[in-house]
Amino acid sequence: MAQVVADRRDVDFVLHEQLNVEQLSRHAQFEEFNKKTVDMVVSEARNLAIKELLPYLKEADEEGCSFDNGKVTVPKAFHRAYKLFCEGEWIAMCDNPDWGGQGMPATVALAANNYFNGANYPFMLHNILSHGAGKLVECFGTDKQKELFLEKMYTGVWGGSMLLTEPEAGSDVGALTTKAVPNGDGTYSITGNKIFISSGENDLVENIIHPVLARIEGAPAGTAGISLFLVPKFRVHDDGSQGDFNDVICTGIEEKMGIHGSPTCSMALGGKGQCKGTLLGQENRGMSAMFVMMNEARLHVGMQGFSCASTSYLNALNYAKERVQGAAITAPKGSPGVPIIQHPDIRRILLTMKSHSEGMRSILYYVGFMEDMIHISDNEEDKARYQGIIDVLIPVAKGYITDRAFDMCSHGVHVFGGYGFTREYPQEQLLRDCKITQIYEGTNGIQAMDLLGRKLGLNKGKAFTDLLAEVQKTIDRAKDIPGLKLLADMVDATVVKLMETVKSLGAVMGANNISAAFAQAHPFLDVTGDTIMGWMLLWRAVIATQKLADKPKKKDISFYEGQLKSAQFFIHSVLPVTRGKMEVIMTGDTAALDISEEAFGAK
Amino acid sequence: MAQVVADRRDVDFVLHEQLNVEQLSRHAQFEEFNKKTVDMVVSEARNLAIKELLPYLKEADEEGCSFDNGKVTVPKAFHRAYKLFCEGEWIAMCDNPDWGGQGMPATVALAANNYFNGANYPFMLHNILSHGAGKLVECFGTDKQKELFLEKMYTGVWGGSMLLTEPEAGSDVGALTTKAVPNGDGTYSITGNKIFISSGENDLVENIIHPVLARIEGAPAGTAGISLFLVPKFRVHDDGSQGDFNDVICTGIEEKMGIHGSPTCSMALGGKGQCKGTLLGQENRGMSAMFVMMNEARLHVGMQGFSCASTSYLNALNYAKERVQGAAITAPKGSPGVPIIQHPDIRRILLTMKSHSEGMRSILYYVGFMEDMIHISDNEEDKARYQGIIDVLIPVAKGYITDRAFDMCSHGVHVFGGYGFTREYPQEQLLRDCKITQIYEGTNGIQAMDLLGRKLGLNKGKAFTDLLAEVQKTIDRAKDIPGLKLLADMVDATVVKLMETVKSLGAVMGANNISAAFAQAHPFLDVTGDTIMGWMLLWRAVIATQKLADKPKKKDISFYEGQLKSAQFFIHSVLPVTRGKMEVIMTGDTAALDISEEAFGAK
Repeated sequence: MAQVVADRRDVDFVLHEQLNVEQLSRHAQFEEFNKKTVDMVVSEARNLAIKELLPYLKEADEEGCSFDNGKVTVPKAFHRAYKLFCEGEWIAMCDNPDWGGQGMPATVALAANNYFNGANYPFMLHNILSHGAGKLVECFGTDKQKELFLEKMYTGVWGGSMLLTEPEAGSDVGALTTKAVPNGDGTYSITGNKIFISSGENDLVENIIHPVLARIEGAPAGTAGISLFLVPKFRVHDDGSQGDFNDVICTGIEEKMGIHGSPTCSMALGGKGQCKGTLLGQENRGMSAMFVMMNEARLHVGMQGFSCASTSYLNALNYAKERVQGAAITAPKGSPGVPIIQHPDIRRILLTMKSHSEGMRSILYYVGFMEDMIHISDNEEDKARYQGIIDVLIPVAKGYITDRAFDMCSHGVHVFGGYGFTREYPQEQLLRDCKITQIYEGTNGIQAMDLLGRKLGLNKGKAFTDLLAEVQKTIDRAKDIPGLKLLADMVDATVVKLMETVKSLGAVMGANNISAAFAQAHPFLDVTGDTIMGWMLLWRAVIATQKLADKPKKKDISFYEGQLKSAQFFIHSVLPVTRGKMEVIMTGDTAALDISEEAFGAK
Repeated sequence: MAQVVADRRDVDFVLHEQLNVEQLSRHAQFEEFNKKTVDMVVSEARNLAIKELLPYLKEADEEGCSFDNGKVTVPKAFHRAYKLFCEGEWIAMCDNPDWGGQGMPATVALAANNYFNGANYPFMLHNILSHGAGKLVECFGTDKQKELFLEKMYTGVWGGSMLLTEPEAGSDVGALTTKAVPNGDGTYSITGNKIFISSGENDLVENIIHPVLARIEGAPAGTAGISLFLVPKFRVHDDGSQGDFNDVICTGIEEKMGIHGSPTCSMALGGKGQCKGTLLGQENRGMSAMFVMMNEARLHVGMQGFSCASTSYLNALNYAKERVQGAAITAPKGSPGVPIIQHPDIRRILLTMKSHSEGMRSILYYVGFMEDMIHISDNEEDKARYQGIIDVLIPVAKGYITDRAFDMCSHGVHVFGGYGFTREYPQEQLLRDCKITQIYEGTNGIQAMDLLGRKLGLNKGKAFTDLLAEVQKTIDRAKDIPGLKLLADMVDATVVKLMETVKSLGAVMGANNISAAFAQAHPFLDVTGDTIMGWMLLWRAVIATQKLADKPKKKDISFYEGQLKSAQFFIHSVLPVTRGKMEVIMTGDTAALDISEEAFGAK
């Protein structure tokens, strides 16, 4: 099977050579997941992705979703794909088998998700929403709620969504106005309007279970007064059977730039006063429930964006190997044309895409691996350390990765020249689909504020320091390897400068120049991400060097040499620019803050 | 009329305060174009753009073009717009009035084009193609060809196109296979297939005149054997009346990411052996004819990309002033929401868009101004100097500007949050439309090679040095202004480093490491463009400082202060990153060249 979604050799490298996931199977929780099982899972995911999801990527984009009188129809091909996806039990890969989950390590599930999202990310949105909604039930539901809903959601019999955004409450969730009034029987009557609800309505499933953020009558304003409710599309009787329509109506779907296979719904709750929900978790604790889910949701968005980039890279690479155009630049005039992979500028673009693709994969899988380590660890201090590292990496995994993924998809169009702009090839769709990953689940501006405002100071800065300690370990190992000394020194210099940048931002915050610090939040996310990428690529180079010393097979030699080239390229051609960006942050120019509204022009 | 396409104050600033276009009217060629006339032209263009083109931007995107049995239908609304456009005589703004042109300075025409393209760039493609084809007739046609075709093309009675690309001849034009066989009567029989032909077929005009690149039987291979032919869709009798169909058939149109209002046609010539054309210019000199047209065409593409960015900025700015979301970051908890323009990250994005938008406008108009200076100058040395500066700036105006324009359109989506991804707002369309400007008329990779391989060494490097001498003049002026000394020093340092970069690339080329040099071509285009932007913004700041000293009106004070902020922001927040990129070029890492094809992965 061709490498058209994610390079299997690279997926295996991260799983087995970089993270050594097999070590997880030494612990009871993951004992089934030895190397053989992991490989089988990845192979099955890859198989399903390439054979059943990828072929309908374009068709679903063109067909899109349609809306008619409250009903939403998803692309036809998604019905078959969904059936296969549920049969393969892919919705709840990491979850409790008691509720229909597979109990898989997160790292392995991410590899599977890399294939699924890289093949057909708009299709995958349905499943991710179902899973996320189910997870809320698992984490915050009563026994009865779990019994009624959970297995059906985890196995895809019922779908799920997440009713959060309102027209005037987007980034500012606390502004929401959806209202919940207790009925005295344990249920609440819900009224309100929500927008931008992925899979809020669709014809894949017989019932959709909506977690809904709403404010109980009389609750405080802002985020402190928000509660979470479980609101099914069709009510569910005590015996689990499906009841009457619950007055949750889809009032329309958005026309969008991309992800046309995923319906983005406007939802009206309780228009006829008949919408009832049950509290999920505690009163006024809706936002903390959201926060519990947020890491997983944001990691998934990073995976969505990255998967677009990963596929775009392989398409570009395969195309560049076949497309003949122009003689080699060093060949005598009149020489025959060569595949464009031989042209220096195309090689630079491809290595840009390759190194970013690899570094991003390592970051995402690593976050999953940290989650797995929490599960198998019995040392509370370790668990806290892993959790801190995850918390710091989440804005990078979501914000930095989707920013870069979009850039990579743009490069991926460029390699195809004029063809890249046509719908004949998937490159332009990947670019269009990828764009939303920078925006939803907290815009990347919000991610940047999360990193600077919350994560940098988390546990008095220990989380950030713990992460850098891991980076340092790799640098130290690399410094002992003669061929990597220079690269290690350069990553080291970047880390040192990152710390100076942190210090400088800390001083600005300390002087209470909050706005000045936050004007640098996004650039700071950028440079933090670049540093982490440098770390991951250096780590890969360390392993590759060691493996090359063991005289591997010919094909592996190429792969490991490719790892060294990725690291060399990124560290020499990206990190010096990163250090320029760090200088910008430290200079802390305030023009953007000082300029008056009139001076921006217009009106 | 609202500022929704291009900020009129800024357009006027470049025309009158930065370039002082009125000086052109002191010369016979442009004597009609005093300030009053210039302002009237811009006002009329703006009026037509905002009232008649902008309202159909979305409609035309959704309707698109349709193809049926050789016929292409453009969006309905374009018919009325086209009629008005022709009535206003906007197709041949700068051309000879004897042939239906308006004899306008190029600088002024660019301002008009800024409005037209910013309002509806897909519509404008029709007109730009007609004009470009007409220009070829004007430059290379015989008296008879001009008499038969030119006025009708310049006035829009007939359309034009440009048949260059073939499936196997894109960036490599020399690979084309379209054949021309002399018939002995001065005509040639043409056979071949062309792709990606904008406006190759459409229902706006009764006849379409196609300049076609083809190889005369027996001519040399490669670019040296390419000739240019004039091939009308319907033959034209000697008396100018329209004759039979000329066997030029549109065989289909592309489905594309954007510019849906512009049909991208596949064309079959001579499928029935009935396609006849006449030679335009000399045998085997087709490529030099192309080169004569290339500067104009590429400048226009820069204008197209920039205009998308210019509109995207104003939309983002207007939205940010109105969209209330979240309390100010420094406000106590529970404070009411504020317009998002008050949030530091949004301000940073907006000032990024503003400064780039302004710098790009100055670059483009400046190139037009240099063209005008050639027309009015009677000193051959000056003319050559202006031409050299234009030649160096063209890859910047096309390549650098469209790269940055795409980034700005991406920012423009982001400011709208989730709404930016929907078709309810124009931001996503501007991003989609803008993408092709990086690709067509020579991909930006080709532009980068043009800058490094041709333009840097043009006239033994004199052209590049002449350009930098102009930059230096501004720096020297700015250094004498106390408030601008620091900014001037930083631009100066950037120029010095650019020269070091040039020297370093020269050494690499000198050592015959051609591939190594060209692997840095695109980064070099990038840093050259940034430096030119820094120059333009510093130049604007010099003028603004002087004007502020004259105690201007309140509204102008804001505008000039905005100019100072743009310069401050760009020079402090972009140029340090640029200098990092220069270091990367000088390091000249060769990983992208050294990596083996296998090591890229896949297959």
